[in-house]
Amino acid sequence: MASTAEHDAMRRALAIAQRGPRGVNPQVGAVLLGRDGSIIAEGWHRGAGTPHAEVDALSKLAPGEARGATAIVTLEPCNHTGRTGPCSEALIAAGVTRVVYAIADPGDHSSGGGTRLRAAGVDVEAGLLADEATALLESWLTVQRLGRPHVTVKWAQSLDGRAAASDGTSQWITGPAARADVHRRRAAADAIVAGTGTVLADDPALTARAEDGTLLPHQPVPVIVGARPVPEDAALRRHPHPFLQYPGDGASGGLAAALEDLRTRGVQRVFVEGGPAVAASFLRERLADELLVYVAPVLLGGDRLALHDIGVTTIGEAKRLAVASVTPLGDDLLYVAHPTPPAAADALRASARVDQPSSEGDE
Amino acid sequence: MASTAEHDAMRRALAIAQRGPRGVNPQVGAVLLGRDGSIIAEGWHRGAGTPHAEVDALSKLAPGEARGATAIVTLEPCNHTGRTGPCSEALIAAGVTRVVYAIADPGDHSSGGGTRLRAAGVDVEAGLLADEATALLESWLTVQRLGRPHVTVKWAQSLDGRAAASDGTSQWITGPAARADVHRRRAAADAIVAGTGTVLADDPALTARAEDGTLLPHQPVPVIVGARPVPEDAALRRHPHPFLQYPGDGASGGLAAALEDLRTRGVQRVFVEGGPAVAASFLRERLADELLVYVAPVLLGGDRLALHDIGVTTIGEAKRLAVASVTPLGDDLLYVAHPTPPAAADALRASARVDQPSSEGDE
Repeated sequence: MASTAEHDAMRRALAIAQRGPRGVNPQVGAVLLGRDGSIIAEGWHRGAGTPHAEVDALSKLAPGEARGATAIVTLEPCNHTGRTGPCSEALIAAGVTRVVYAIADPGDHSSGGGTRLRAAGVDVEAGLLADEATALLESWLTVQRLGRPHVTVKWAQSLDGRAAASDGTSQWITGPAARADVHRRRAAADAIVAGTGTVLADDPALTARAEDGTLLPHQPVPVIVGARPVPEDAALRRHPHPFLQYPGDGASGGLAAALEDLRTRGVQRVFVEGGPAVAASFLRERLADELLVYVAPVLLGGDRLALHDIGVTTIGEAKRLAVASVTPLGDDLLYVAHPTPPAAADALRASARVDQPSSEGDE
Repeated sequence: MASTAEHDAMRRALAIAQRGPRGVNPQVGAVLLGRDGSIIAEGWHRGAGTPHAEVDALSKLAPGEARGATAIVTLEPCNHTGRTGPCSEALIAAGVTRVVYAIADPGDHSSGGGTRLRAAGVDVEAGLLADEATALLESWLTVQRLGRPHVTVKWAQSLDGRAAASDGTSQWITGPAARADVHRRRAAADAIVAGTGTVLADDPALTARAEDGTLLPHQPVPVIVGARPVPEDAALRRHPHPFLQYPGDGASGGLAAALEDLRTRGVQRVFVEGGPAVAASFLRERLADELLVYVAPVLLGGDRLALHDIGVTTIGEAKRLAVASVTPLGDDLLYVAHPTPPAAADALRASARVDQPSSEGDE
């Protein structure tokens, strides 16, 4: 059982973890407690290529000073030699006799630190303030689980599924509350993706803005998908961050490769709102984890669809959604949903069909 | 002030009114009270070409027997000579000295009976149990107000506005709860409208069915819009009612003419669910009073749209909807909405635009 001093130290470790950057590596904090339970050193991870939190903390002590100490760490100490040595070995070498960590390291190569420590006779306790640590690392953990950044695909549409009137005009299908919600969510993403078609047609700024038009503090990196050049005078070029461009979203594996590159750049959350073709590509390639669909109480008719071909040819292949919520925003509705695997949809559909007495159309 | 006996008599009149048919003429009941407040005669209207309720009640009395009586009628006695003489004159001639009615006659030609009675010295009171009488005659009153039957346009769609997958398959986009709701609403309509395209593609039965597939007690008359012949073996031909067919929904005024003919046949409520082209025609011609849109949590992509061109070419012409309710039905959502006049939508849009700091697309 963790002591009160260890609880307090873990809260402190979680707080200082947030001094580090969100990126390829997790935000981690470490606190070293002396034999009397008082804090003798603190450390945190400052990003890829810099010492891990435990090593950072140990570095602040004189040789031998950590002997008999307890290390409180927000993430299981690593067990691999990357650009820094394994933290488990460093703790053992320093003479730390007890290690308390919040959550296990999910990495294939880096996990096993707890086992290594125990094998060396260190007293190990896991799970202290695990929920808080999980919340802190949610995006990073998602990247570990998916093997790529988390992808949210957003579009706004009329009730009948159009993104614009026949002549291309679309200001404004959704209302101010829905648009403000989009900007808030943009600001929570690390990257915002649009297709070249959207850049050429709409000249979007791809910034996250407050309702008065000013920039929100955090701006996602703008990412353009497609081969066509971005015009010299594009609004995008005035974005606080230089944009990244990846060739052809339609090319096989093009989007997956783009996501992989973004992951190596520390992007954990991608917000896709770049038009009907790009949205469809992410869905077709099963790279959409979450959908945000803003539905306005408007009918448009015509051929300007909000979502292009997603590769469904027959009803059994329909992309069935798990709807997490439907929320009114002004006059509009926001669907938050997750695509379910087609296999599950097929099973659902097959079981539903059994109840049907008629062979008519969808009447 | 109406007496307790008059209240009771009005309840009785409302009850016997329902013995008459729903159709071109309203359902009306009449009760005659003697000087002591007891019922001396009752009558109700049995449909176009038969005596009105007041005259039916009077006909049950010997000459002179109604002298000094009070007439309790669910609808203002008429003042015009149609296939029957004006009821107001009949009541005056019979010596009725007091008339209590629930609601006024909205007809241009038939109203004014109350004024005529007062001019003849009859004591007239209006508004007794008006809410109950309005509820009874709701559909008929709607027809009087609109000058045509009330039109509900229904369709089912995926979230992205498709009615079928690319290959035309559509069973089932929406779930059992949504389909059962459609059948209940069909059963509340007098006519159900489909286009020849839907008849040829889906061969619908156009019946209102219970979940076990059996027919519900009331079946709307099937109405087909379009010039193409209905196949000899169409399921439609096995409907309990013979179908009516009107030429070309696309023709100018074609739908309005069809509705006018249906009105003369006593149709008060029309349920349109005949496919994307017919739905669009009703919207384009501003003949849709209510929309029912069943939205399934499914994406389909592709070109099988649930709603075709509605004549909107630019965003300012968007058909903005007043959404009355959004109700979950199983996994689906049912929108109940009313088209708002384009002029109102334009004003709304213009005022909304003032707040916008940016000139970007709908981002």
